[in-house]
This record gives sequence, C-alpha cells and structure tokens, in this order.
Amino acid sequence: MVNETQQSCSASSSSRSDGGSSSGSESSKDNSRCSTPVLDADRHERLREKMRRRQEAGDKWFSLEFFPPRTANAAVNLISRFDRMGAGGPLFIDVTWHPAGDPGSDKETSSMIIANTAVNYCGLETILHMTCCNQTKDDITGHLQKAKRLGLKNIMALRGDPAGEEWEEEIDGFNHAVDLVKHIRSEFDDYFDICVAGYPKGHPEAESYEADLRHLKEKVFAGADFIITQLFFRPETFFKFLKDCQAIGITCPIIPGIFPIQGYHSLRQLVKLSKLEVPQEIKDVIEPIKDNDAAIRNYGVELAVSMCRELLDSGVVHGLHFYTLNREVATTEVLKRLGLWKEDPRRPLPWAVSAHPKRREEDVRPIFWASRPKSYIYRTQEWDDFPNGRWGNSSSPAFGELKDYYLFYLKSKSPREELLKMWGEELTGEESVFEVFTCYITGEPNRNGHKVTCMPWNDDPLATETNLLKDQLEKVNRRGILTINSQPNINGKPSTDPIVGWGPSGGYVFQKAYLEFFASSEIVTALLKVLKKYELRVNYHIVNVKGQNITNAPDLQPNAVTWGIFPGREIIQPTVVDPVSFLYWKDEAFALWIEQWAKLYEEESPSRMIIQYIHDNYYLVNLVDNDFPLENCLWQVVDDTFELLN
Amino acid sequence: MVNETQQSCSASSSSRSDGGSSSGSESSKDNSRCSTPVLDADRHERLREKMRRRQEAGDKWFSLEFFPPRTANAAVNLISRFDRMGAGGPLFIDVTWHPAGDPGSDKETSSMIIANTAVNYCGLETILHMTCCNQTKDDITGHLQKAKRLGLKNIMALRGDPAGEEWEEEIDGFNHAVDLVKHIRSEFDDYFDICVAGYPKGHPEAESYEADLRHLKEKVFAGADFIITQLFFRPETFFKFLKDCQAIGITCPIIPGIFPIQGYHSLRQLVKLSKLEVPQEIKDVIEPIKDNDAAIRNYGVELAVSMCRELLDSGVVHGLHFYTLNREVATTEVLKRLGLWKEDPRRPLPWAVSAHPKRREEDVRPIFWASRPKSYIYRTQEWDDFPNGRWGNSSSPAFGELKDYYLFYLKSKSPREELLKMWGEELTGEESVFEVFTCYITGEPNRNGHKVTCMPWNDDPLATETNLLKDQLEKVNRRGILTINSQPNINGKPSTDPIVGWGPSGGYVFQKAYLEFFASSEIVTALLKVLKKYELRVNYHIVNVKGQNITNAPDLQPNAVTWGIFPGREIIQPTVVDPVSFLYWKDEAFALWIEQWAKLYEEESPSRMIIQYIHDNYYLVNLVDNDFPLENCLWQVVDDTFELLN
Repeated sequence: MVNETQQSCSASSSSRSDGGSSSGSESSKDNSRCSTPVLDADRHERLREKMRRRQEAGDKWFSLEFFPPRTANAAVNLISRFDRMGAGGPLFIDVTWHPAGDPGSDKETSSMIIANTAVNYCGLETILHMTCCNQTKDDITGHLQKAKRLGLKNIMALRGDPAGEEWEEEIDGFNHAVDLVKHIRSEFDDYFDICVAGYPKGHPEAESYEADLRHLKEKVFAGADFIITQLFFRPETFFKFLKDCQAIGITCPIIPGIFPIQGYHSLRQLVKLSKLEVPQEIKDVIEPIKDNDAAIRNYGVELAVSMCRELLDSGVVHGLHFYTLNREVATTEVLKRLGLWKEDPRRPLPWAVSAHPKRREEDVRPIFWASRPKSYIYRTQEWDDFPNGRWGNSSSPAFGELKDYYLFYLKSKSPREELLKMWGEELTGEESVFEVFTCYITGEPNRNGHKVTCMPWNDDPLATETNLLKDQLEKVNRRGILTINSQPNINGKPSTDPIVGWGPSGGYVFQKAYLEFFASSEIVTALLKVLKKYELRVNYHIVNVKGQNITNAPDLQPNAVTWGIFPGREIIQPTVVDPVSFLYWKDEAFALWIEQWAKLYEEESPSRMIIQYIHDNYYLVNLVDNDFPLENCLWQVVDDTFELLN
Repeated sequence: MVNETQQSCSASSSSRSDGGSSSGSESSKDNSRCSTPVLDADRHERLREKMRRRQEAGDKWFSLEFFPPRTANAAVNLISRFDRMGAGGPLFIDVTWHPAGDPGSDKETSSMIIANTAVNYCGLETILHMTCCNQTKDDITGHLQKAKRLGLKNIMALRGDPAGEEWEEEIDGFNHAVDLVKHIRSEFDDYFDICVAGYPKGHPEAESYEADLRHLKEKVFAGADFIITQLFFRPETFFKFLKDCQAIGITCPIIPGIFPIQGYHSLRQLVKLSKLEVPQEIKDVIEPIKDNDAAIRNYGVELAVSMCRELLDSGVVHGLHFYTLNREVATTEVLKRLGLWKEDPRRPLPWAVSAHPKRREEDVRPIFWASRPKSYIYRTQEWDDFPNGRWGNSSSPAFGELKDYYLFYLKSKSPREELLKMWGEELTGEESVFEVFTCYITGEPNRNGHKVTCMPWNDDPLATETNLLKDQLEKVNRRGILTINSQPNINGKPSTDPIVGWGPSGGYVFQKAYLEFFASSEIVTALLKVLKKYELRVNYHIVNVKGQNITNAPDLQPNAVTWGIFPGREIIQPTVVDPVSFLYWKDEAFALWIEQWAKLYEEESPSRMIIQYIHDNYYLVNLVDNDFPLENCLWQVVDDTFELLN
C-alpha cells in the first residue's frame, strides 16, 4: 500500500525491467540453495510474534511491498525478483490488491496467486492486501477462505477506493477498513494477523488529522495487530504521528513506509494519486535533474538512507517498510547501505524452505529436484503431510502429473531466441549436445560465442557447490556422461561453511557424493559391469524413459545423502535419494528434453530428431558413494567405465 | 516340547543354577548393549519367512526350548539366561505350556508371561506352546487372544496329556493337536505361525508309525507352518522320518529336536515320560559313569555334537532345535563347537531391541535407560506408537508410574547379603558412598575385600565401552561426581567396531560424549559457574528429587547423541538426551537410591540416613559435549569445577 490506488500508478512501470540485468549478478547463489534466512522458530511463529522477537532482540528488520504483475511473463520476472530480494532477508513482503485485476482469481497474475506463490514457492512470509468497499460480505468471506486455504496467514485490511463518484456508505456494508477488520476477527477468529494503514498526514478524505487518528484507533481496537504507514518525506512527520498515536492509546507496532524516489514521473504520479505534497526542498533538487533518471535515483537513495538512519537511530523504529514499485535496485541499495541487507543469509536447510503452513514441518526432500525446487513444491502441493525427520518408505503419496503446467514448471525463464543461442540453432549429432552440457559446466562460450547460462534441468548458472567438481564434470560431459545434478562428499564441515553449510551455527554438515546424468545405453552397459566392483560402496538407480529400472538399493529404501548434526538437536537429514520418487523425477527429467529443448526446433528437423533420439534411448543414472569419509569414488567409476569402453 | 509332560520332569532341575557362575563370564557385554543379532528385516519378517530366508541363504540356525520357572526368583534367573543365550543368536526360543502351573495367567512364572517377557524384554522371537485337551473352546480362544495381545506371534499346537485314566474323546471337543491348529486358523486366520510336533519313532499312543505320520500330515494340511521333532538318539532315525514325511507329501520344514544328555537321572526320567528307548550303545557308556555328572555331560556334548554334525552335513537339515532343560552349559558348548553360536553378535541398534510387534519400528530411545532397558520397556509398554526416525517433541505419552513393580524393575538381581558386602555393611559418610562408586568403576575390591559388580543403576558389570573412560571416571567418582551413565565421543568409526559398532556393516557410527552423575549442591553450584564458559558447546540438565530443573536445552528439544550412517539407508539416531523423559528418569534414578540401597539398612540407622541424605539433597546432572569431532571437553568441565571448589 502506498495509497489504495497505487497499483494503477505503479503497474505502469512494471514492464520496465528495472535493474534486471545487474540484479542477476547480485544473486550468485544457486536458486535451490538460497532461501530466506529463517531460523527454525521462524517456521512456527506468526508474523506478529516474529516482529516482537526481533524487537526484543534489538534486531532491526525490513519488509518489501510489491504489486501484482499484468502478464504471465511479468509474473515469472516478479517471482525471480522475490527470490533475489528474499535472499536479503525481509521479515515479510506484501502484495497489493488490484481490484481491476480480478485479485482473488486463480489467474497467474492475481494478487491472491502472487501472494500464494511468494509464500509457498519462495518461502516468504507474506501479507495479502484486501480491500472491502463495493464488495459483498460473501465475496470477502470467499476471498479470505481462499487465502487461508492457500496458506496465507496475514491480511492488510483496507477500504479501497470507491468506484464512481456517487458512492455512498451502505448500511451494514463494508464502508471502512474497520468493517473488514471486524469481519475477519468475527469470521476467522485469530487465524490471520491483521495489518492496517496509518496516514502520518491524515487520510486525504478524513475530516481532520485528529479524526483520522480516531479511525486508526478504531481499526486497532477492532483487532489489527500492527500498522504500516503511508509514505512520508520527513522523519519528523513520522515521529509526530507515532507520538500522537501513542497519546490516544495505540500501542501496537507502527512501521514507517519508506518510498525511495526512483524517477521524476513515477514520483509525480504517485503524489497526485496519494494527494501528498512533496516538500519544497526536494522539489528544488529534483526539478533541475528531472530528465536524468540515474541522478534522480541516486538522490532518492541518498534521501531514503538519510531518513531511514534518522528513524532507526531514534530507537523507536524497529522495522522499515519499503514501497519497491516492483523495482530492485534503489531499495536494495538503500538496504545495503543501512546494513539491513543480509549478505550471507544462513540457510536453515540446504534447499529453499516453503512458508506454507502445511509445509512447516517439512525437512526432507529427494535430491532430484535440487535445481527445481518450485517444480517439487508444485508437484507435491496436494500432499496433506510432509515428511519430517525421515523420508520414510515408499508409501508416500503420488507426485502431481506432468500434464499440469504452471508458471515455472516445464517452461524456461529465458525466451526461445536466447535458448537457441545457448543450446544450438542447429545440432549436428549427439556430440553437439555433449558440447552444450560441457559449456554449461565450464562457463566458456559455445562455438557461436554464446555462454550457456542455463539448461533444461537448471534455470540458473552452476551452483557454487557444483563448482567444487567443475574439472571432473567437464571431463565426463565431454564424453557423453551428461550431468544434471551432483554434490561432493563432505565429512563434517562447520555448518557455517559459506559453500556447503546450512542450519544453525555450531553444527557439522555431511554429504555423500552424488552424481546424476543421462548416458547412452552403450555407456550404461559398461557402467553396470564396472559397478559390480563397487557393489557394497555405490548405490545406483538407472532408468530409461519407459521406466525400465535397474538398482541395487535395498528394499526400495531411501538413502540419506545430506545430513547435519547440531548442538542440542536431533539429526537433520534434509536430502535423500529415494528410489520411488526417482521414477516420478524421471518423467520430469525426460520431459524437459522435449518440452524445453526439442520443441525449439521444427518438427522433423534433424536437431529435433537428435534430442528426440536421446530422450528415447538414453538412460537417467544416479550414483551415491556411501563411503563419505573416503575420497569420492564416483569419478573412478566413470573412468573405469570409459576405460572399459575403449 | 520334549514330550508334553516334560515340564514335570525337568522343572525339578530348575532350582539348580546350572553353570550360573560360569555363564556370568560368558557374557562380557553390558546388558544394554547386547541383543539378538537380528537384521533389520528380522524385525519385520514372521518366523516362517526368517526360516525360509535362512535356508535360501544356506545359513544354518538353531533354536532353544525352555520351560516356565516355578518361583519368581527362578523367573529372574531364567530371564538372565534368555539374555545370555539370546546373545548366541537363536532363530527363536520356545516356552512350554505347563497345565499345572496356570500357564495362561498373569503370574510372573506362567508360560504366557515368560513367553511375553522373552519377546518384549529380551527381544527374542518366541513360540508359545499351547495344549488343548481338557480345555473348552472359550478357554483356548481366550489364551490365544491374550497371546496376541501380548505380542506373541507363534504357537506350538499340542494335544497335551489327558488328565486321568478315564479320558475319552469328546465330540466337537479338542481331542488332538489338529483340532487346535484348525481352531487357530479359523479364529485367527493367518495371524500366528503354527508349529506342530513330529515323532520320529511315532507317538507312543499312536496305533502305528504310519498312522502317526498320517496324523502329522493332517496337522500340516490343517495349517501348520513347520514341524519340530521329538528328541531322538540316532541321526538315521531322523533321516528316515524326514524321508517318510516327504513321501506322503509333507513339504514344510521339519526341524530335528536335539537333546544333549546332561545327567543320568534327568535322562532316565525323560526317557520314562517320553516312552523312548535309549540305544544300548549309549546305555553302555553311561551306566559305568552314572555318578559322575561332569563325565556324563562331556559324553552328552560329544554325542550331540557328532549327531548334529551328521545332520547338518546331510544337507537336508537347516536348523537344530535344542531341548535345554533350562540349562546353559551343555547346549552352549555344543553350539560353540558346531560354530553356530554367534561369538560377536552384530547389534542392530546400540540397545536391546524388543521383538514385540508393536515396537517393530522403534529405533530411538532416551540414553538414560541405557543400563536399564527392561525398565524402559516396562515403563513404555502402554504406548501405542513408538518413536522411529526421530524422538520428536515433548508430546510423547507419559511413562509408567514408579509405583508399579515388576520382576526386573526396582529390585536388584542380587540378594541382600551380596549387596551389603558390595555397597557396605555400614556407611560412615558420603565418602564411603563415593568409594563404592569408585570400586565399581575400577573393579578393585572394596575395603572389606569385595568386588562391586553391580550398582542400583546398573545390574551388570561395567560395559566395555565405559571401560574406555575408566581412568577419568575413577578420578571424578573419588571426588563425589557419582557417575551412573556415560559414553565417549566417536567421530565416525566403522559400524563393525567390536566396542562401539552397531547396525549393518559398511556404515559409520558417531557419538556425542555423555556424562550423567549425582553430585552435591556444592559441586553443582560450582559446575554451573563453569558451564557458562561452555554455553554453546555443552548442553546440560540438572535436577533434584523435587524436580527443580536447570537446563540450557533449546525449547525442550531432544539432542541426538548416537547416530549411524549406513549404505543405502536413512540416518539412524537411536539415542537421544530428551529433556522431558529426563524428568521421568529422574524419578526412577532417585528412587533406586532408596529402594535398592537405603532399604538394605535398618530404619533410622546412620547408613540409611546417609543414603537418604544424598537422595534428598544431591542433584542428577547430565552433560552432552556437542562438538563430537573435537576432544571430549566434559572432563575439562569437571576439572574446572573441582578447581573452582578448591
């Protein structure tokens, strides 16, 4: 919320890929390994408790506001932005309610679905805005029920802008935000944390500043848990407002809304809509540089940093709420300069944790989706329980069907032209496919001078951890062992290790070496001979697209390949190689050849037939070296295989 | 079964502590660490499947028959024998049905309760005998229902001896074992594995050998899973019987019953009751040495070994069933010479696994009961589910009340006079208590020349593993840190390690160092100061008898202190320090001061008052060093504490 009509203003800037290219390099971490820096407790506490705990600990925080996108492509970009900005460690994000955009619908771009995505797929604590005017009680209850069903736990209760001039208050209708607060509390008891808006200069439609304060008090006394303020330009404005609120008995947290000025036109439009007045001293600076976007943004950052410092130094402000206008650079810059941006977020688990309440206890996943965590969450969304402590036996419920599509399922984030440049306009044989895999590993440009920065099985550049294995991976990919997932063995590194660490500090993390790849049946035949020598040491699963499956796993039991030992805790084993899930993953892994790669080419074209041939004839193989304290033997297994083939 | 009346014969020898003293030294392992050498699969397979798997693997096995004891003291001895002989790795044991001894009752000495104890507390696969003649259908159904409820899964279906001369077959009654087999199958479907008796020489009451074979076939076709034979003296007897059975279509396993001759009188009585004839060549040897027990036993062992070898070498015998007459030495000797006795049983978990079906998945326990596993099983017998994978949070069901007594609960196995010799006829102060603890650790005799071989918290001599810590333990006990449980830290030893290993081979086991002790409040005050320095490294729980509890454990979470990593498996973490269970253990640990030690002395006597004083004023402390890869810091913690006190 900047103003309840802010969306119409700022949505216009959503098509600009604000800092998109530079923000890519901000995030050096593999998607699957980066997640919000939550602690264990964070997964169980509600937002107001987290806020209280942070305040008690003297730990300053920030939050980020976004508005829903207009197009599916913009949604994909926004979700990537959630991941990148989520890495900085916001306490929560919020998603505005866009009445014109069918906000409660199932569309990929609706407020509801974007907020659900933030919670469920990006692991972010999220507040969904909701307006109430011009809506029936049933509509509102329906929206709230849906929000609850989708795992949303926090609502920003707003009035919204009346539609048309002739709007009049309806008796027993929802005329004010307070009606919505009361309705949520009466229908949903204490389920939601409720946030309301505060206007440091008074709401433009209020009779007076004092009358507006009284309205705010009504909202709080009706059950709101905290207040986020409209933007303001001077710290004094907030301090006075805070004092006035406290004077009339408002004791809940009041979070200042910060708007880093990012451009001349967006500022003008925003000010017009929110009916705020820009102080003369700011106008004086901006007017002369109004055509210089960079200069305005630099000024906006300076101004925001200085105001935030004053707010934080006062001792009465514990968190800052940023109106991002869906842009990354300015807000990130302000946060970094304030020291609020978490440069090295601690990972609670080695994969991205979902914030959906029903996944609260989840702490084990199959390794196969390590680079595709959103696909994993999507395919398991219907599960009622999530494994914790152990993966358990093969009785876990089925995975979602491959025919279901979704924003980030079988589609790449990159456009077709980009992919063709990376993966080859024209393939000349299996070797040209080996080359693509090899270039992805080495980071070297392909024969046409393009870097391969993503693969069908991994939308992001190579993970830092995988870099540890780079030399070996390069060697084997050149020869047709087409790797799509791997991890080194780790024998007790500190849990704070910047590359392989995860979980609370003071612990030790371990891994069994893992290697997963596609390979021809010729290679697989030799490999199976070699594996006989390693029977007790190496577990393998080998499967083709038809599901022919060869394994030495005992009784279809899962094999834990990542685990951690922490002070005062039970053992945590977040990643397993599970024989049953592998067959579900197999479908997805093979489908990606076709959906992402083969379909780039004309039907019947030689390039397409090459990919189709690999899809039809190659095997998907995974190998685990159980002897984690010894040197990883999987490279030796592969070497032996090549030797046997020669 | 030797004969259905065998009990009356052999019960007479139950009061002889056959090899009791020597058998103590046979078992060098701490009770809590020794258990049947079952594999994982063994916990889930039914007996007939285990038998089949062993046969397919060409893995010869043995089983042991016992009869129920007459007195509670004899029951305690028999249970110890189960533990010792269980360590040799029998595939199963069986407990005979003693109609005169109220076999289905809840008495500590009933067949039913002894079989239940073997399954539940000793972790032994067990067959309960059951006879049917002179019993109503309801009686029998009642017994079977009770057996099922108590976790028994195997029944040996017998006719039993008719009471009195005038017994006549009842129409629709249970006249033959086959009636019982049919009844079990019709009332309990496939729940029980059923064993029946085979008579290599024909049943003494059968019309003929052939008629008896036909009866046996009826029993098998009515649903019996396998046959155990009556004892015999010559291998040819068995081979002929086996061939004859097969000739008429009996295909189930037929297990030869082996009776090592252990004494002249027991042989004579047995032969009389079973109406068997002892071959002349055996009589010729025995008669001249009939007063020399040792000579007869030696001969019996020779004879049994040679017959067993012939049976096993034939290739048609996969398992041997031993009629032990509740004695240990002869059978153990035969088994050792045959190479069937498991000298180093692999422990599936670092504690004694129960064979009760409802505890099948149990794989986590609090460390506190490490030396008192039967008490733990007893106090958790009402639980419906048992933790597996994780101990979980504090919501586990309550432990059984201390007021419930049981055979092996708060009572020592040793008689009062023994205990007084070990723990002091007269205590002169707290220091004389320190001395008892120290002598238990060192193995040195106390000031009156008696070795201290047990303590109230541990009925057995020091575990091999604890020996690793002997020097440090001695030092601290001398100074009033009265240790009752401890383990060293282990950073990845092979799972086959003879001292600390457990679980399948090819794995690695780990431990966090643990130390548990009683200490005066003076020591505890100093300790708490010292622990501040170790705040992040050492977790502690300190509690007195009143329940005043001091801890730094986060959120009452359990701390895993033993875990193992195995090929192709999930992580197993069988032992935890659980803050909630610790308060239940505390009650037991403090009660043992009074029940076992204080009550040795007259009321109001100085000795009793010393123990009472310790009980009332000392604290029970446990410490975990979380940094398992580093050198154990707990000794430094204790040294620092003593230094602070000086």
